[in-house]
Amino acid sequence: MKTTLRGHSLVSGVSVRETGEVLNAVNPATGQKLAPDYHLLELSSVPAVTQKAQEAFEDYADRSGADKAKFLRTIADRLEEVAEDLVERMPKETALPEPRVRGETARTIGQLRMFADLIQKGSWLDARIETAQPDRQPLSKPDLRSVLRPLGPVAVFCAGNFPLAFSVAGGDTAAALAAGCPVIVKAHRSHPGVSEIVGQAVIKAAAECALPEGVFSLVYGSGKTVGDALVRLPEIKAVGFTGSRAGGQALMRTASKREEPIPVFAEMSSINPIVILPETLRQNGSDLAKGIHTSVTLGLGQFCTNPGLILVPDNEAADRLAADLTTAFADTPDGYCLGPEIAASYRRTVARFSELKPQGVSSRRLPNEADDKEPCRISAALFETNAETFLKEPKLNNEAFGPATVLIRWRDRNELLSVIRSLEGQLTGSVHGTEEELSAAKDIVKALQGKIGRLIVNGYPTGVEVCPAMVHGGPWPATSDCGRSTSVGTMAIRRFVRPFCYQSMPETLLPDALKNGNPLNLERLVNGEYTKAAL
Amino acid sequence: MKTTLRGHSLVSGVSVRETGEVLNAVNPATGQKLAPDYHLLELSSVPAVTQKAQEAFEDYADRSGADKAKFLRTIADRLEEVAEDLVERMPKETALPEPRVRGETARTIGQLRMFADLIQKGSWLDARIETAQPDRQPLSKPDLRSVLRPLGPVAVFCAGNFPLAFSVAGGDTAAALAAGCPVIVKAHRSHPGVSEIVGQAVIKAAAECALPEGVFSLVYGSGKTVGDALVRLPEIKAVGFTGSRAGGQALMRTASKREEPIPVFAEMSSINPIVILPETLRQNGSDLAKGIHTSVTLGLGQFCTNPGLILVPDNEAADRLAADLTTAFADTPDGYCLGPEIAASYRRTVARFSELKPQGVSSRRLPNEADDKEPCRISAALFETNAETFLKEPKLNNEAFGPATVLIRWRDRNELLSVIRSLEGQLTGSVHGTEEELSAAKDIVKALQGKIGRLIVNGYPTGVEVCPAMVHGGPWPATSDCGRSTSVGTMAIRRFVRPFCYQSMPETLLPDALKNGNPLNLERLVNGEYTKAAL
Repeated sequence: MKTTLRGHSLVSGVSVRETGEVLNAVNPATGQKLAPDYHLLELSSVPAVTQKAQEAFEDYADRSGADKAKFLRTIADRLEEVAEDLVERMPKETALPEPRVRGETARTIGQLRMFADLIQKGSWLDARIETAQPDRQPLSKPDLRSVLRPLGPVAVFCAGNFPLAFSVAGGDTAAALAAGCPVIVKAHRSHPGVSEIVGQAVIKAAAECALPEGVFSLVYGSGKTVGDALVRLPEIKAVGFTGSRAGGQALMRTASKREEPIPVFAEMSSINPIVILPETLRQNGSDLAKGIHTSVTLGLGQFCTNPGLILVPDNEAADRLAADLTTAFADTPDGYCLGPEIAASYRRTVARFSELKPQGVSSRRLPNEADDKEPCRISAALFETNAETFLKEPKLNNEAFGPATVLIRWRDRNELLSVIRSLEGQLTGSVHGTEEELSAAKDIVKALQGKIGRLIVNGYPTGVEVCPAMVHGGPWPATSDCGRSTSVGTMAIRRFVRPFCYQSMPETLLPDALKNGNPLNLERLVNGEYTKAAL
Repeated sequence: MKTTLRGHSLVSGVSVRETGEVLNAVNPATGQKLAPDYHLLELSSVPAVTQKAQEAFEDYADRSGADKAKFLRTIADRLEEVAEDLVERMPKETALPEPRVRGETARTIGQLRMFADLIQKGSWLDARIETAQPDRQPLSKPDLRSVLRPLGPVAVFCAGNFPLAFSVAGGDTAAALAAGCPVIVKAHRSHPGVSEIVGQAVIKAAAECALPEGVFSLVYGSGKTVGDALVRLPEIKAVGFTGSRAGGQALMRTASKREEPIPVFAEMSSINPIVILPETLRQNGSDLAKGIHTSVTLGLGQFCTNPGLILVPDNEAADRLAADLTTAFADTPDGYCLGPEIAASYRRTVARFSELKPQGVSSRRLPNEADDKEPCRISAALFETNAETFLKEPKLNNEAFGPATVLIRWRDRNELLSVIRSLEGQLTGSVHGTEEELSAAKDIVKALQGKIGRLIVNGYPTGVEVCPAMVHGGPWPATSDCGRSTSVGTMAIRRFVRPFCYQSMPETLLPDALKNGNPLNLERLVNGEYTKAAL
């Protein structure tokens, strides 16, 4: 490995203390403890870290878009250099296979470069100019110019299931740094080594770009002490989190104890319903079985977009689909999930489904029994029931984080609509139908629309494209902010900014984005019209 | 009056019950009770109102921008027709003079038409299109298109101090209706008649535009029952409020008891510091005294942008300014404020300032003594102290809602910066300086910037221009959402929407904003570039 793992928090320019406790990564496939020991930060050291971030904010916030873009590109370059370190370490910590590591590394690097391009261009700043009208009657109009400015230091909590793309230099970090906010990352205990490899790359990039030390820190610590303090310290102005509903809600509760409220952007749980209409089921049943099986079992189902609910009409084509799926699920090899807690939680949720047999839930494939020797080994699971039962059993609304799904048969359109209306908020919803069926499905689309952030037609929810049009968010409890933002794609930068208005500010003191000459060549809203023209 | 005041909530298509209790407007100048009695809604009737709004949402959300614009314009037209009713009723309910009524009516009508223009044009929808790349390696790219969609029914709480512009058909209502959200307004008890005049105009407009009945309702009821229920009922997806910090915080607490969190946009208190630099004070002291006096006493100081803190260098020019201000404040005639609670609260806060005499706060002008016969009559008040005392006395940070301000003398730049850094979040901050002084005041601007939403140079914070570049918001506790939005200007529409993404949606089922042909002629972000071109 190029990277030397040191086993400590990465906090520059601040002397910190550690508790004496350590954590170790554990290989989910072998149960082996991995070196080095990771030393946990002491609670008393957290304020120094957030203060350093606040100091860095004073400088970093007003750096040019070009400077910030250079930082993000340098992080991407440094990450590229340690790609083989990640290929070596990540499978050991996570049991994720090499192609996934390479794919997620590429995605993470791509995300950083995407945000670099965005801020280099600058149009996201939403620059608005209203020129003065001193002679307006009855009152003169002042010169008013507004632009988006960064909120302040952001605390990012790493996701267990995306050790790169939603972790140390993942989407939240990239978006916050792009916005102009320093970032303090709390590492996830299941992949401390991967976190350090990435963290060292970021710190190297910050030094190369001559940025203030507090612009980025990576801390190892207990959620109850260090995590809690991060969310509560006054310097922190926003929180990014991807993980379980319990985890997200805990952060929201912590934040609610602050005197000054701050936004907590928690992307939590989702069961991502797929609706299949009759004619398409009749025509494409076998392709649908393959597509559903692939989407449910991809990455051992450890995705927040994993489809946990398949809504099919109750007919013979559904019998064939159920049979095809049963075979496919039975033939699915077991895999090692990210950690023993995930395996235990998966087994618990799935057991709750299977216990509903008397209520009419049939287990078409049950997972393997828990095995102390291989606690992380799990297999795919498939359940089936009808809409009536689903509507009566709220437990079936729970996310089984892992390769499990529930087939629900509906008897008529109204029953289907009732099921959709009974759902909680979701990241995604999918509809499969022929052209004709879709044209006649406006009621279904409308009902789904109110529950989700992304609607997929004749496709599957897994595979989240990183681009300007992506919305990876959805109504509560899919996200804590009721789907008012996204954590994937360029729009994610909006979470970490606020609009700021200058009234009658002399030209020389205005930020470049608002200067008369438009030196950044931005698309700006000038007196109500979008233009790149100078004033 | 053209309008016949009926004294009941305006809720169409729902039969509601009332408590039997009534409220009456009271003329602040005479103490006279005004007819008619306003009957309070019963708590048990609120769910029917929110359900009706939810039903209306299903229809109204997907109306075209042109349809929604027509509704807003029709409201504006109907309001114009009852302008004389407002001129007759509003001064009786509020003691605000006729020119203010005419000005605020014009502003309210202008706001509605501004939002109509915005949604007619449609560029605010932030339409984004990424076209498919089926052959991309290693993974094909799907077609992705996103657009902003309305959140759902919004509860709007009227402001006491802006019976028109921040009340029934005020900024929050206009922004929410423009976004596609039905609105339920809770009337403010101090101006029920004005509320009904405006509410009837809105309901007339909705009927003329053949909109569903639940698109707008106006309810009279107790905050503790009806107001609380509005914020807690699941159909409500956002709350708009302008008023006191206590009021806003109460709504936030209520909302925090919901299972599904929702955004509460509360615009609360602000003391709007004005910083005056030495050279400009020396040159323009007498103009500054006039400007400050005008801004503090405008509308009897009943504005959230009223300047409550004047930061001046401790020198002879400041002695002259203090003397000029003392004369001007002494010569200011008393006025009748909006209601006895406001008068009482003003006297309480101002008394707390004057009690700080032993600590070094001098009362240059004290308000009149409370008089049972004229409880709403108040006079302007002026205090003076130094930065050292201000930093020690957190009470001086409290907003005295009314025509009062505190002159603070700072000895040097560091002391000035300390005062600024000690402030809570504010809607605005102002700096007065010569060109040379301003160029050398980057540290002051930076420190202020972190505390405010709008920076005013050589001007005064009162007078909030309604336009696309306005930011009327600011860090906590100026607003509940930490200045991440504005409640004035076109940007205010963003509070009531969320982004929504369509993946591989057939052209015919896409909303017009996202169709290939660009039928709405929008500026759209297509494959990363802004364009009005069709695909």
